Amino acid sequence: MTSPADGPGRAAVVGTGLIGASIGLALRARGWLVSGRDADPARAGRALELGALDAVGDDPEATITFVATPVSAIVGEARRALARGQVVTDVGGVKGPIVAGVDDANFVGGHPMAGSEQEGVEGATADLFEGATWVLTPRLDTDPDAYTAVRSVVSSLGAEVLALPPERHDDLVATVSHVPHLAAAALMVQAAEGAEENAALLRLAAGGFRDMTRIAAGAPGIWPDICSENREAIVKALDELVSALSAMRDLVVLGDRPGLLSALERARHARTNLPGRGDRPDVLAEVRVPVLDRPGVLAEVTTLLGELGVNIVDIEIAHSSEGPHGVLVVVVDAEAVGTVRGALYARGYRVSARRLDP
Amino acid sequence: MTSPADGPGRAAVVGTGLIGASIGLALRARGWLVSGRDADPARAGRALELGALDAVGDDPEATITFVATPVSAIVGEARRALARGQVVTDVGGVKGPIVAGVDDANFVGGHPMAGSEQEGVEGATADLFEGATWVLTPRLDTDPDAYTAVRSVVSSLGAEVLALPPERHDDLVATVSHVPHLAAAALMVQAAEGAEENAALLRLAAGGFRDMTRIAAGAPGIWPDICSENREAIVKALDELVSALSAMRDLVVLGDRPGLLSALERARHARTNLPGRGDRPDVLAEVRVPVLDRPGVLAEVTTLLGELGVNIVDIEIAHSSEGPHGVLVVVVDAEAVGTVRGALYARGYRVSARRLDP
Repeated sequence: MTSPADGPGRAAVVGTGLIGASIGLALRARGWLVSGRDADPARAGRALELGALDAVGDDPEATITFVATPVSAIVGEARRALARGQVVTDVGGVKGPIVAGVDDANFVGGHPMAGSEQEGVEGATADLFEGATWVLTPRLDTDPDAYTAVRSVVSSLGAEVLALPPERHDDLVATVSHVPHLAAAALMVQAAEGAEENAALLRLAAGGFRDMTRIAAGAPGIWPDICSENREAIVKALDELVSALSAMRDLVVLGDRPGLLSALERARHARTNLPGRGDRPDVLAEVRVPVLDRPGVLAEVTTLLGELGVNIVDIEIAHSSEGPHGVLVVVVDAEAVGTVRGALYARGYRVSARRLDP
Repeated sequence: MTSPADGPGRAAVVGTGLIGASIGLALRARGWLVSGRDADPARAGRALELGALDAVGDDPEATITFVATPVSAIVGEARRALARGQVVTDVGGVKGPIVAGVDDANFVGGHPMAGSEQEGVEGATADLFEGATWVLTPRLDTDPDAYTAVRSVVSSLGAEVLALPPERHDDLVATVSHVPHLAAAALMVQAAEGAEENAALLRLAAGGFRDMTRIAAGAPGIWPDICSENREAIVKALDELVSALSAMRDLVVLGDRPGLLSALERARHARTNLPGRGDRPDVLAEVRVPVLDRPGVLAEVTTLLGELGVNIVDIEIAHSSEGPHGVLVVVVDAEAVGTVRGALYARGYRVSARRLDP
């Protein structure tokens, strides 16, 4: 069987909603032969009509399968595809329980951060992932070839890959996605309840309020699953938010002007420094990490750089066919080389680095 | 002295920051002669350079003064202008304490809901108020001529006027503006604190999070004043938000799927029905309210319609020169006539209405 990393071959998509169908469209646009199915045959048929699939059904010759079903169905579908010897990834919004549930070296958990507001096959587009961050969650026992294969395909769709440990991903999305969504809904309900007795309120809702509540207009259907699968991290992040708001309340009650200014200034600084998306660095550098006999190097290195916010522009493993021996080659922003070298050195790696000509 | 309602004459602006200078630009574009000053003479000079003023200084012949200083300076400046016999309005983000502090029949509290993210004279534009909601807060003892004069000038700048009692305004802006701002700051600080140990978090911040925290990028300087002047309403709205978030947390902890779906569905419904801004009705109607000897009719009628969310397209008082006798003529969306008639009838008014030809 050829590797999916070798370039366009045969791929499968299970679940042809917005994300699954967009993956199909994007893969087909790059020369892949894509088959797929959906629990709802009509939706799979529509994906075929829209050009997201070449055929409806299971393709035993697919080398990579994207499981894009609701979270509750992912583990079962992933195992089914793994049983056929395929490399498998998923797009679920929660990673810890899924990666633990599948528990297979050829499974690489994934989560494209795109398209959460629209839904359904009709919203699918081939360019949905251009410039989007696509999290992958390798574990120490993840097969490096499976990881680089998934990474290579996902990158080819225009996404920027960010590797994170599964549980870390879940904490982070609770903070930047799940809890903000619940907070937007809470703000909106609060305003709407005021508005039942006072329609003026909604006429006062200016740009800031509209921005803050925009995501509350999304379809609620996916949220019970997400809140159930990521319960622990969501509750923790909600508690943090409540505690931050209570601290704000105390500053207001006490009339603590310096405290209020300092909290708002911190927020302003952080918001102003929110990194842009899809900024490609000007100068790249290649960092070479001898892999030797240490297991889990790929997961450790990629998730370490992920946690440091270092964008891995490219990654390759030069190794013998027998196993994870050889050299891990990571391409990063030249400005990040110091950080990368320091972090890897601290973890006991001896690395070499060189700038690449632009 | 001519009335400011008669059209372009002489106006004064005290405080030439973003809002004050924008008022100057917008007035001058409509033929007014505008003088103004600022606690910072350099800023007033810059407003002159940018064309927001005809002259720096006080104009004793101005018929209307806009006080656009920080909240803490408004009462003093308003009284100074009132002493010259001018009609006076302000643009402060809090209305109850200001209106009570000035306590004058020729003062009409105001709050244009525009431009909160930018600041400074350099951001001023003549079209800042086009389509924006501009709240006016008449009291029972507000002079109807002063109100209609301010309303007429403000409408001529392209704003839609919404009349509300001062305290109601303060409750509403706490809910749709002040508390959302504090919540955005809390979300941003929470994310940033996670990010100090994990830069990945900010790379995960997708569109929803960026939308929700955008207002946290604003300059914090105005907030201690606002939080101090509107303390009571802000604390109440913060408590409501914390309680709504705690209810969300309980739903997540209990795994209450129907409860979660219903809360999110309510939010979605409310967000989807957020009224558009600047929608001008197709067919208008004129509602005539005999005023007779009842005091405070103008404030009562306009704030009642404001609370019902009815947009007053135009308003006029046909009265004798001796006082508030005569007929109040209000132009509204023809579809709102039933609501208007019912509400006014319930307050003891006998009204007549007729559709206006489009």
